Amino acid sequence: MAENKIKPRILTGFMELLPADQILFNKIYDTIREVYESFGFLPLDTPVIELSEVLLAKAGGETEKQIYRFKKGDNDLALRFDLTVPLARYVAQHSGELTFPFKRYQMSKVYRGERPQKGRFREFYQCDIDIIGNEELSLVYDGEIPAVIYNIFRKLDFGKFTIRLNNRKVLNGFFEALDLSDKITDILRVIDKLDKIGASNVISELEKLDIESGKTEKIMDFISIAGNNNEKTEALRAMDINSEKFAEGVDELEKVVGYMRDFGIDEDYFEIDLTIARGLDYYTGTVYETVLDDHRSLGSICSGGRYDNLTEYYTNTRLPGIGISIGLTRLFSQLKEAGIIKAERACLVKALVIPMGAGMEYTLRAAGNIRNAGIPADVYYAEKSMKAKMKYANKLGIPYVVIIGEDEVNSNTVTLKDMTTGEQKTVAIDDIAKEIKAQERM
Amino acid sequence: MAENKIKPRILTGFMELLPADQILFNKIYDTIREVYESFGFLPLDTPVIELSEVLLAKAGGETEKQIYRFKKGDNDLALRFDLTVPLARYVAQHSGELTFPFKRYQMSKVYRGERPQKGRFREFYQCDIDIIGNEELSLVYDGEIPAVIYNIFRKLDFGKFTIRLNNRKVLNGFFEALDLSDKITDILRVIDKLDKIGASNVISELEKLDIESGKTEKIMDFISIAGNNNEKTEALRAMDINSEKFAEGVDELEKVVGYMRDFGIDEDYFEIDLTIARGLDYYTGTVYETVLDDHRSLGSICSGGRYDNLTEYYTNTRLPGIGISIGLTRLFSQLKEAGIIKAERACLVKALVIPMGAGMEYTLRAAGNIRNAGIPADVYYAEKSMKAKMKYANKLGIPYVVIIGEDEVNSNTVTLKDMTTGEQKTVAIDDIAKEIKAQERM
Repeated sequence: MAENKIKPRILTGFMELLPADQILFNKIYDTIREVYESFGFLPLDTPVIELSEVLLAKAGGETEKQIYRFKKGDNDLALRFDLTVPLARYVAQHSGELTFPFKRYQMSKVYRGERPQKGRFREFYQCDIDIIGNEELSLVYDGEIPAVIYNIFRKLDFGKFTIRLNNRKVLNGFFEALDLSDKITDILRVIDKLDKIGASNVISELEKLDIESGKTEKIMDFISIAGNNNEKTEALRAMDINSEKFAEGVDELEKVVGYMRDFGIDEDYFEIDLTIARGLDYYTGTVYETVLDDHRSLGSICSGGRYDNLTEYYTNTRLPGIGISIGLTRLFSQLKEAGIIKAERACLVKALVIPMGAGMEYTLRAAGNIRNAGIPADVYYAEKSMKAKMKYANKLGIPYVVIIGEDEVNSNTVTLKDMTTGEQKTVAIDDIAKEIKAQERM
Repeated sequence: MAENKIKPRILTGFMELLPADQILFNKIYDTIREVYESFGFLPLDTPVIELSEVLLAKAGGETEKQIYRFKKGDNDLALRFDLTVPLARYVAQHSGELTFPFKRYQMSKVYRGERPQKGRFREFYQCDIDIIGNEELSLVYDGEIPAVIYNIFRKLDFGKFTIRLNNRKVLNGFFEALDLSDKITDILRVIDKLDKIGASNVISELEKLDIESGKTEKIMDFISIAGNNNEKTEALRAMDINSEKFAEGVDELEKVVGYMRDFGIDEDYFEIDLTIARGLDYYTGTVYETVLDDHRSLGSICSGGRYDNLTEYYTNTRLPGIGISIGLTRLFSQLKEAGIIKAERACLVKALVIPMGAGMEYTLRAAGNIRNAGIPADVYYAEKSMKAKMKYANKLGIPYVVIIGEDEVNSNTVTLKDMTTGEQKTVAIDDIAKEIKAQERM
């Protein structure tokens, strides 16, 4: 028979975790969800499979090549490749039933059949929030989005981080004033590399784009603007760029910085960064990136921005929005590899009940008492040696074991052992949970 | 442009909810998860896409026809159609890294491209628990599985329910003793209809299977066994069936009933039912179904049982297990339609902060104070009339609004309005959360 067995395996580019890592992953996931909900975002859960016609209304080129697309019966189907297109479809489809501004979060898997490479996944979680307005959307939300992110990463405690923000109107206005609108995509791609390749290489790459040296100088002045957030907006104004869009962008940037302060974001944790642009044909106002200060090589762990019209492929109503996304699968994988996070527990229970001669009724009464007090508990049922049972508790890292022999049954007690300190104690069967809680407070 | 718009829509057979229903769905999902975890089940999250060869190791016939299967590059891929096959693959693949007995839960979407019909979904959540032993698995787990289910449905409070249990050894032993092993599949299919078609129709359908009338009589005696759980096992023994398997099954049934009592399951909530069989070529011991007493037409809302070997298609190691599954998408849809559940809230926040002349700094300080005390809160930023702002709070069903005008700012207070009673009260800006908590306790 052996030769008929099929080798159990999964596809490359798919992340599947052992329980200890899954517990860690879920803890991060739950923290993100909790903060999203505390700011009033509503849950959404769209289908993984959609009609290709609907999902690919906008896509083209690279995106389309990566898509998992197939036929079933007469239907041309595709797996979602992000959560933004399904949101646009959902809002367009249900606009009459939603209350605007519509704040939603979705934390789900998306699919991209790209060539697998280190740190890239074909199936990965995106944790998105978006706020969609009907015709208009207050600029205060541009401060709220980073406030949400700030609260999440303070709670997650992966180390010091910086939220970088910019405004696309500042960028577009600046290059329009220099009469370089037609080259903006190429220029932004070069500027984006400043951190990696340095100023002199940026200059030579800009020259390759046939930009006059006077303009290159202005570009370098622009992206070299330094100082604190106030000094940066002052310096932008002082540049005296002849563009209404630019002026509007600087105004917005200044206001958003003010709102971020009002939201209580520590000024050490955010900065204006004039080199970031994000998705070129999509964002129209504020844009964000987030980096871990001590692990900049990980790139942006959380990005997003403001867009003018979410649903243009589906309706004529103008629905402006702002959103941000955490690519959780990739982030988790990077943080683990960099040693920033580590699985601490291989179990979710606090106590393991071990019968050593006690009957099931007494054993299960003890376990029930613990669970009813809100403490997760498991029981070891197999008839094994004490040693085997303790080994099981140790392997899973269960913090307390509850040992029950005949003596305990006769005296209505249990023996509670703290697996960390090794201390043992006789406790009344009805007081186990109370005792565990008391020990945890110590 | 209008004629170029694509109609926003999803496929039939896919459930997508509006926020209020999604909140309700998530509340049920979270309750199930919480109870699963409290009993020591570990989280698992397998890929939606697997290799067809691996996923279809066992499948055939109907299952295979329903599968979403497609090629990407050289790979023959399929979407998972249940969570049991991925579990088998996972356990076979990682057996060396897992601690046995391995208790896992997975609550994820699965895919079946069946013809859409009322109450059937092509994408749906299964909420599974399984316990996998290495070579052996204690019978106490046969009592634990229904204890988990009992705790879940008591908490969910959908009304009185009954967990029905049977044992496949009792069924198989009985029909072997009658020398009807070759007809067992057909017989069980007929018996399964007893509730629907009544005893006399069952008799005539059994006759159509060419079963002698003496044996039909014995079968009818068997499935007509009535009484409480103890009386039923006594009656089974009294039948004097000449089969070791039958005797073993009755023993197990009796012991499992005993364990269920030890687990504290109210005897009103479970009963031996000799007519249930479940997946015919899969289960080998205890089997379960669960019905809502006042809504029996919904069928079993939660089913499962014990199997001899989870991983036979992948390894030679014998890994017996026991598990149960809640088909949450279908259940949710049925409960909603039957009026058993109803969305109560269209939001997750407890408070909406409404600035009426107050600056953003003061407004956001108030919101931050509420959130920092663990109460989800939102802010209405758009410059609209008081009426428009209150309408927004009403539409979402937000229980408290916090109104801040200039007077409040000058006196370091806010006006807290209970939207249910309409009562208003001036509260210090630092005491909003305390006051909301106090009012909720009343």
